[in-house]
Amino acid sequence: MAQSRKAKFVAAGRRKVRAQRVRNTKSPLAPKRVAKLPPIAGVRLATGEAGIRYKNRDDVLLATFVPGTQVAGLFTQSKTASAPVEWCRMRLAHRAARALVVNSGNANAFTGWAGALSVGKVTESAAAAVGCSDGEVFVASTGVIGERLPAEKIAHILPNLAERATPNRWRDAAEAIMTTDTYPKLATAAATIDGRRVTINGIAKGSGMIAPDMATLLAFIFTDAKLPASVLQTLLSEAVKTSFNSISVDSDTSTSDTLLLFGTGKGSHSPVRSANDRRLSDFREKLNQVLLRLALQVVRDGEGAQKLIQVDVTGATSNLAARKIARSIADSPLVKTAIAGSDANWGRVVMAIGKAGEPADRDRLTIRFGNHTVAENGQRARRYREKAATRAVSGRDVRISVDLNLGEGCARIYTCDLTRGYIDINASYRS
Amino acid sequence: MAQSRKAKFVAAGRRKVRAQRVRNTKSPLAPKRVAKLPPIAGVRLATGEAGIRYKNRDDVLLATFVPGTQVAGLFTQSKTASAPVEWCRMRLAHRAARALVVNSGNANAFTGWAGALSVGKVTESAAAAVGCSDGEVFVASTGVIGERLPAEKIAHILPNLAERATPNRWRDAAEAIMTTDTYPKLATAAATIDGRRVTINGIAKGSGMIAPDMATLLAFIFTDAKLPASVLQTLLSEAVKTSFNSISVDSDTSTSDTLLLFGTGKGSHSPVRSANDRRLSDFREKLNQVLLRLALQVVRDGEGAQKLIQVDVTGATSNLAARKIARSIADSPLVKTAIAGSDANWGRVVMAIGKAGEPADRDRLTIRFGNHTVAENGQRARRYREKAATRAVSGRDVRISVDLNLGEGCARIYTCDLTRGYIDINASYRS
Repeated sequence: MAQSRKAKFVAAGRRKVRAQRVRNTKSPLAPKRVAKLPPIAGVRLATGEAGIRYKNRDDVLLATFVPGTQVAGLFTQSKTASAPVEWCRMRLAHRAARALVVNSGNANAFTGWAGALSVGKVTESAAAAVGCSDGEVFVASTGVIGERLPAEKIAHILPNLAERATPNRWRDAAEAIMTTDTYPKLATAAATIDGRRVTINGIAKGSGMIAPDMATLLAFIFTDAKLPASVLQTLLSEAVKTSFNSISVDSDTSTSDTLLLFGTGKGSHSPVRSANDRRLSDFREKLNQVLLRLALQVVRDGEGAQKLIQVDVTGATSNLAARKIARSIADSPLVKTAIAGSDANWGRVVMAIGKAGEPADRDRLTIRFGNHTVAENGQRARRYREKAATRAVSGRDVRISVDLNLGEGCARIYTCDLTRGYIDINASYRS
Repeated sequence: MAQSRKAKFVAAGRRKVRAQRVRNTKSPLAPKRVAKLPPIAGVRLATGEAGIRYKNRDDVLLATFVPGTQVAGLFTQSKTASAPVEWCRMRLAHRAARALVVNSGNANAFTGWAGALSVGKVTESAAAAVGCSDGEVFVASTGVIGERLPAEKIAHILPNLAERATPNRWRDAAEAIMTTDTYPKLATAAATIDGRRVTINGIAKGSGMIAPDMATLLAFIFTDAKLPASVLQTLLSEAVKTSFNSISVDSDTSTSDTLLLFGTGKGSHSPVRSANDRRLSDFREKLNQVLLRLALQVVRDGEGAQKLIQVDVTGATSNLAARKIARSIADSPLVKTAIAGSDANWGRVVMAIGKAGEPADRDRLTIRFGNHTVAENGQRARRYREKAATRAVSGRDVRISVDLNLGEGCARIYTCDLTRGYIDINASYRS
């Protein structure tokens, strides 16, 4: 059954061309317009081309911060976390940030001792260029795992980037950190703290190895709010629950997931010392908003995604149970392929509920596709209409709602469909 | 962005043709020959065409057993189990079996009260045809979820099947229970108990919604060994661990998984009352063998499968931890697509180990593709050669070995690659 060498070569070539085509096509779920982000007092940005892996595009982002900038963060829960993640986790305790260096094309993960040395080279170079200690430099890397990061290439361009950094390069920044993303991801919101206006900007990148329950992917949030790191950390941990921790593309978890929140403290409001302070209610809401918008942009750019799927579970015995069931549905390859084929195959949703292992009573379940009830009382709904059910799963936005009718637990997870495009991209990502 | 009606129609048609093509093509991993099964004293088989869903093929299997036949079983752990599963689970306590009725094309799952009535109709009809009580009739259904099973069509042909049943229809039996399977699955072994020869025959069907930790899929084992149901149950529960509970196609769990073992007691050996009896050592080994052979045939026929992947994890802190890590690798869409593309992307194996949540030390890991060490000591192996690594993932059989170097725990899981074929089949299975 062995293929001939030539046949293999031809097949590999065909795979690459297909993958390239899929990857170069902007997701049909992309937002109509890219958000325009205003400057944030105390933040400067520059991007440059280090030539790590990609040709003819910027692959390094440098962000610099005024002295006094506070930082909070969340990271992957992977047991094989990358060297940059380990570095950031360690530095977070010191709360102070003066620079952020992000590169795309190489994750600097599973690179052993060399990985730590690479981080050292980048942080030292950035510290020298910005004029701070290397402990105040945060780093993130995304791309291939297991290959040595050519840190010298990054270090080499950092002095120039530091010189060129300006407050107005948000879109360039979002583009420089892209890997298989088909569009840059940005979001912004204005918030009021104690009557004074502050700004929250965010950029993120996806778009494979996305799973909830961690600060998934790379995302960087910037604000001029004057808040201590401890308050930033609390707010970030809350906001992540309903945003980055509620999305799933392929249930695979990256070794590099990093979410950082930088507060420059240049806002003109009076100081706030506690996360429970009522003056933070608007800021909290807007921070959640920025994170959710970024998270949705990530799902909408899931590899090969043609549809955004929102899974709502209510009536579970607890929020945790609801979450597990929602994830089971959102991660099921059979549910995701059915939606890809616009097939109202609600039996697979029943299957996914059943396999979650959480309390569920077959005969009390209600399942809806969009507003159409497809199943209730342990069987197909009386008013089930194939046409209406099919219509509900045929558009770009699909909503699956499950009511377990057992308790008060609820959860919402966003995911995308599983298509040939996912296979095409991932069967030839590295080579 | 809405597609026109016509474009949608054309796309759906194209999907169906593609799915049909993939489904009709025999898996490249199919065994060269279909096993020929000898008769088993006390078992008779017949198959027939009830026209439940498929055209021009048999879709019902009737097996009849001599009085005194003992039965053991394992079932899906799904919370939304099908009506036939609930029936069998209940009847198992009585230990006696006289008939088995299996249909393909409709799973009789999530069919509410109608599902129980369908089971009633089938068991009553079989009982009348065979001449036993309906409580001695076991049933299994496989196919679409959520549609009413036309039980009358099955009941209608059962008298004729009972009349025609003969000891020599094993292959027909295995073919009648197929759904998206591309070949029938059969295995046999001769065993010796106390110096006397007995036979073990098995048939099974796959090939989507396959995940471990349950008696996955439909599988029926028959033997003439003279063993009480309690002994059969113990042996079956043991044998399933390293066979059906160690395979995964898509991590989705069926609502219908059923594994039944029937012992007619027609063997000429002296009675054995305990599963610990030493005289059972050969029988135990051969039973494991039959189950493993069937399980591997199921994986090799995984929807769209082009490669069989064996994942071995050693050096874990416990067998359970090893199993979790092996499953995390075997279920990772990114690992499975990389193998599909013959891409030696071992970084994704690192990722899958990391996300399993079990103890793992990045810097002590060793990963092998085939016999080629690709990673060790927290980085790419010194002797890593891209060509050798690629060769190891290019054939039909791929072996991924992970040594965690932490303890004595080990596990083996079999899975297959994730290809466009899987998408093609599952984006249009039902419609």
